[in-house]
Amino acid sequence: MPDPAPRTALVISAHAADFVWRCGGAIALHARRGYQVTVACLSFGERGESARLWKEGRGLDEVKAIRRDEAEKAAAVLGVHRLECFDLGDYPLRMTDDDKLRLVALIRDVQPRFMLSHSQYDPYNTDHMYTTQVALEARMIAQAWGHNPGEKVLGAPQLYLFEPHQSEQMGWKPDTFLDITPVWEKKRAAMECMNGQLHLWEYYTCVAQQRANHFKRNSGGQAGGRDCSHAEGFQSVFPRTVDEL
Amino acid sequence: MPDPAPRTALVISAHAADFVWRCGGAIALHARRGYQVTVACLSFGERGESARLWKEGRGLDEVKAIRRDEAEKAAAVLGVHRLECFDLGDYPLRMTDDDKLRLVALIRDVQPRFMLSHSQYDPYNTDHMYTTQVALEARMIAQAWGHNPGEKVLGAPQLYLFEPHQSEQMGWKPDTFLDITPVWEKKRAAMECMNGQLHLWEYYTCVAQQRANHFKRNSGGQAGGRDCSHAEGFQSVFPRTVDEL
Amino acid sequence: MPDPAPRTALVISAHAADFVWRCGGAIALHARRGYQVTVACLSFGERGESARLWKEGRGLDEVKAIRRDEAEKAAAVLGVHRLECFDLGDYPLRMTDDDKLRLVALIRDVQPRFMLSHSQYDPYNTDHMYTTQVALEARMIAQAWGHNPGEKVLGAPQLYLFEPHQSEQMGWKPDTFLDITPVWEKKRAAMECMNGQLHLWEYYTCVAQQRANHFKRNSGGQAGGRDCSHAEGFQSVFPRTVDEL
Amino acid sequence: MPDPAPRTALVISAHAADFVWRCGGAIALHARRGYQVTVACLSFGERGESARLWKEGRGLDEVKAIRRDEAEKAAAVLGVHRLECFDLGDYPLRMTDDDKLRLVALIRDVQPRFMLSHSQYDPYNTDHMYTTQVALEARMIAQAWGHNPGEKVLGAPQLYLFEPHQSEQMGWKPDTFLDITPVWEKKRAAMECMNGQLHLWEYYTCVAQQRANHFKRNSGGQAGGRDCSHAEGFQSVFPRTVDEL
Amino acid sequence: MPDPAPRTALVISAHAADFVWRCGGAIALHARRGYQVTVACLSFGERGESARLWKEGRGLDEVKAIRRDEAEKAAAVLGVHRLECFDLGDYPLRMTDDDKLRLVALIRDVQPRFMLSHSQYDPYNTDHMYTTQVALEARMIAQAWGHNPGEKVLGAPQLYLFEPHQSEQMGWKPDTFLDITPVWEKKRAAMECMNGQLHLWEYYTCVAQQRANHFKRNSGGQAGGRDCSHAEGFQSVFPRTVDEL
Amino acid sequence: MPDPAPRTALVISAHAADFVWRCGGAIALHARRGYQVTVACLSFGERGESARLWKEGRGLDEVKAIRRDEAEKAAAVLGVHRLECFDLGDYPLRMTDDDKLRLVALIRDVQPRFMLSHSQYDPYNTDHMYTTQVALEARMIAQAWGHNPGEKVLGAPQLYLFEPHQSEQMGWKPDTFLDITPVWEKKRAAMECMNGQLHLWEYYTCVAQQRANHFKRNSGGQAGGRDCSHAEGFQSVFPRTVDEL
Repeated sequence: MPDPAPRTALVISAHAADFVWRCGGAIALHARRGYQVTVACLSFGERGESARLWKEGRGLDEVKAIRRDEAEKAAAVLGVHRLECFDLGDYPLRMTDDDKLRLVALIRDVQPRFMLSHSQYDPYNTDHMYTTQVALEARMIAQAWGHNPGEKVLGAPQLYLFEPHQSEQMGWKPDTFLDITPVWEKKRAAMECMNGQLHLWEYYTCVAQQRANHFKRNSGGQAGGRDCSHAEGFQSVFPRTVDEL
Repeated sequence: MPDPAPRTALVISAHAADFVWRCGGAIALHARRGYQVTVACLSFGERGESARLWKEGRGLDEVKAIRRDEAEKAAAVLGVHRLECFDLGDYPLRMTDDDKLRLVALIRDVQPRFMLSHSQYDPYNTDHMYTTQVALEARMIAQAWGHNPGEKVLGAPQLYLFEPHQSEQMGWKPDTFLDITPVWEKKRAAMECMNGQLHLWEYYTCVAQQRANHFKRNSGGQAGGRDCSHAEGFQSVFPRTVDEL
Repeated sequence: MPDPAPRTALVISAHAADFVWRCGGAIALHARRGYQVTVACLSFGERGESARLWKEGRGLDEVKAIRRDEAEKAAAVLGVHRLECFDLGDYPLRMTDDDKLRLVALIRDVQPRFMLSHSQYDPYNTDHMYTTQVALEARMIAQAWGHNPGEKVLGAPQLYLFEPHQSEQMGWKPDTFLDITPVWEKKRAAMECMNGQLHLWEYYTCVAQQRANHFKRNSGGQAGGRDCSHAEGFQSVFPRTVDEL
Repeated sequence: MPDPAPRTALVISAHAADFVWRCGGAIALHARRGYQVTVACLSFGERGESARLWKEGRGLDEVKAIRRDEAEKAAAVLGVHRLECFDLGDYPLRMTDDDKLRLVALIRDVQPRFMLSHSQYDPYNTDHMYTTQVALEARMIAQAWGHNPGEKVLGAPQLYLFEPHQSEQMGWKPDTFLDITPVWEKKRAAMECMNGQLHLWEYYTCVAQQRANHFKRNSGGQAGGRDCSHAEGFQSVFPRTVDEL
Repeated sequence: MPDPAPRTALVISAHAADFVWRCGGAIALHARRGYQVTVACLSFGERGESARLWKEGRGLDEVKAIRRDEAEKAAAVLGVHRLECFDLGDYPLRMTDDDKLRLVALIRDVQPRFMLSHSQYDPYNTDHMYTTQVALEARMIAQAWGHNPGEKVLGAPQLYLFEPHQSEQMGWKPDTFLDITPVWEKKRAAMECMNGQLHLWEYYTCVAQQRANHFKRNSGGQAGGRDCSHAEGFQSVFPRTVDEL
Repeated sequence: MPDPAPRTALVISAHAADFVWRCGGAIALHARRGYQVTVACLSFGERGESARLWKEGRGLDEVKAIRRDEAEKAAAVLGVHRLECFDLGDYPLRMTDDDKLRLVALIRDVQPRFMLSHSQYDPYNTDHMYTTQVALEARMIAQAWGHNPGEKVLGAPQLYLFEPHQSEQMGWKPDTFLDITPVWEKKRAAMECMNGQLHLWEYYTCVAQQRANHFKRNSGGQAGGRDCSHAEGFQSVFPRTVDEL
């Protein structure tokens, strides 16, 4: 008998591939644990993160189709429950109030236990910080009893900020390391779906190994640190509530 | 049959009463959960935090004896496993290398799962920030394989910074709220052992209620937030390592 | 003979009740001192801060009417000179250029000696930080000689940021504590006008007592600190100019 | 024979005079070195930075014409290669998506080796921080292979933030001091073109002398510091890439 | 009839000349207002801030004598009530516990309404930040009822951080501008007593003029800003307590 | 004919291996360019960074001898001009005033064009932040004309902070990426001299590749970014002085 109230999570990704590099392990791990993980891709990253395709002379629709296809394949590999492509365009990403309300509706529909999105500062990529700003705004609206009264209002899910490229430049400081060793092969396979960004496969494999080193150091180091081959790091926006330290 | 390897925690408190106001709930709660909680009181707060006694005309030894007595009573109420009074003097607190090694030895002896100490900045009270600086130094030494080889080296326990007075002035930002409702009466009773600081009983009762409000907001708010009447806040120095977000 | 040029102040409040919890004491105190205090309520907080009314099944217009009524009552209790309800909607709050110019016009009309608004960061409530961003923009426009030439341009009033909920999460650091003891009963009475948020009456009473404790500590502590039973804290955006330190 | 691919730089200035006070020396120096320096003036600063003209009773068109004339004269003195006036209005400055794409087109056309704009925070002047926000967004779009495919995409030019008024209030920290001694007379002459802001001539002369003092201290101080009579300071947004430290 | 309890202030200056450049105006102004201003010079700046004298081939005692003489002359010009030279040596400045208790005794003796010292960070000059660290420690000890019981304990005077050289590099942000126009001639005359640092006379004259510009901007700008020809800036460590905003 | 005044650099390393992992590339690269690079190893990292040797049952002298040998071999591989082992002990590292003056003497003897040391914050390793604090203090003393008059005083060399482990936890933000591709084999060979820390060989190879990715992104990205296979990152403490942006 399926879980009557499955646990859920929501990733809000500015461009099609961000959810793969930055939290593919978290998605696969929670999927394996029985979570239904929804991914909201606000754009396909068609203009700004598909250089190889443009160099090959593709047109916009073709680039989007290829990127959508890659995202769908990666999502399938990771065990994503639902991939919602908003197709809003990128570089720059823009959201009308209606687009935001669509995101609010998705949040309410998913009722996530936690959310994942980008760092709050990114001078290289203003789409990223815009996405997080909207994620906070949408989370607030979803919590309002007066927004679409009658719908189930949102609780207070954590918003984890996943790892940006060049972490130190973004002022991103991870406070949580997640062991993704059990699902590493899935993350690697999902990354390999992204054919336009081959150079990042090795890069994010390195990142996962380094975060595993940090996991070990912070779980006990040379005196009791648990083994871990691959990990991902996250920064929490909100405090957590516990019954034991 | 008792637990063969009991869980442990260590509080490092600059002055005799700090462990009561700032983490008395965490102590009592973990004691109830079977933790052996050790408290290291580096001084009795005899010079700087015993104004009432001095106004009454007491002498130094008398003040120290009274403060020690209060600390012992509060510790007993909270279920402290071991109260270690370093008696180093306060205002200013000073630690020689030998004093620090005594603290290192205590840490190794306790092998805490987590540690608790003061905020890293406190312009009102330099003893507080000095204590945290030493706590970090002692933690590092306790981890060194070459320090007293043969002893059991320390793993990588979290260092939680408990709540300072005037939190915003110290740059202290809680990332963890602990529900201390089940042991609130114990914390209140422990506070009432501190006769020299009557004015703080109500103050820290208010703090506990406010932190409970924050606990509720961050655990779900008006849509699923768990009830909680009293809580304590903590700031983590190190990232945590998890298997689930 | 009344003052020919009365002293004035302006509060810019995102939602109807913010001005009560966060600076009701400042309003009442300055009113008593002869200031004409204007409050700009940009919304009624009808969607996001009226959970109880929605749970009772009220409709939007009804909620707004009740909230307006409460705000007007609270304003009267506090001695507000003028309550200007912009009725712009909340969760999210949005301001068109015309809305902003209406706020600019109000600022110029009031010519405040100082202004009050929200903290600059608030991940829980994007309406709050949006309001402060607009307050700074409107202040700038009101200072421009070329904006509606002929009108009296604004000087350089301080912008005080009043206390947010969960102050540490907002990066809010108070640099000014105001003794509101003489008007505390008025603030309490004004809070009691907000029937939809009963749980906050005690909360903000606690806050006022704690800020009074901070007032005493910073005005002399145990050696000369002035008595004070209730206070409010504020963070200044701009430096102040003085003739004596 | 002239350089077949001249070196280029781009200044993005919110108001007509900003490029003179804040980086006039950098412009003149690089012009002398053979750079083609383009200045984008997003507005004339007609409403907010022309108080003297408004006090004289001028109308908007007249103010703009005078400010344009001053900017052109200053640009000529400094050796600006191209002055592009966007004429978008100020206090507040607003940019539509079309305005932004016009800026993107300019960036691509110029292909700057480095860019210059305002500080990222300025509570006194929201036009300034808005400009930098747009500069980062436009830089990102100009780098996108899918934006107007076929055009030459932008590399990764540094964005230097030039000196704001009241530097400490803006959180601006210079990491680069540029010796403008060889072109100081030009900067002074350009400043003297700005007739509406006489009080700033001496002010920014002082700034240049102080920055020269800082240049000397950081280039060797009293033991080898190079002489320098006038300098400008800049804060880098991005890291630099070098072959020697 | 003179004030039976004169108002007092205390400056803690790492090197002999710091009190002149950084708060000479504040000293002279408060002296004129009837304050008794005490200056504690922890060293003469003999090794690190007397380059000219060393280049002339002077010996240590001679350098110290000259610096002391200059400090005394400057103090006299400014109206310093008491100049206390600790003669502890500089580069590096070191304080034993006895030295610190001597400072504590001075603080208690003076019972200052406010204190002045260096910025909290200064990578160029570790003596400066060490001094402020000790100032906070000494302030804390002076407040302790158990330190030399029977002496009058200290209240809670503000600690103002005066202006460092290269303010932005020190993370120093002034929140208070003091109009020193009425005593500017005295500050200039005091600076001219420091013969070893001629190059700083003009530098700090420029600083005073720029801070006056900031004073004017923040006291009303072009619409009501008060005239002011010279000013000094200060950063407050502690919040202030007021009866009116 | 050799350069009559060779260029020089100085690395201040808390423990024997730090200079290898953190700036081995910078050392080898500058050595190849003709710099004489001196390395000051304040300790051998014998207690805290030699876990493997202690697990093998070695004694202190043996551990130190092995670590010294490794450091010497690595230095030779990198082309270090002079390796100065202070042998001060570690975990904790402590420096007396005499130790500090020995460092000052070394700095003056070397007259470095730039210096390299640890991050300014490191809660995992207080030896690291202590070293940087002393490096700043020693730099200041070396600049003092009155310290050992007659010796050549130091100018104002940059202090670069090399990469710590877990960069984000240390608040370390690189502003300079150095291409070490030409000497990568040397750095790898030097790392392989450190037999006690095998697990770090791959780790810091990964780091070098990631920093190369950052080098490329910041030197032009996909439109002109220079190729680079390995790099190191550094954070500057002081501003730099330039003749061209």
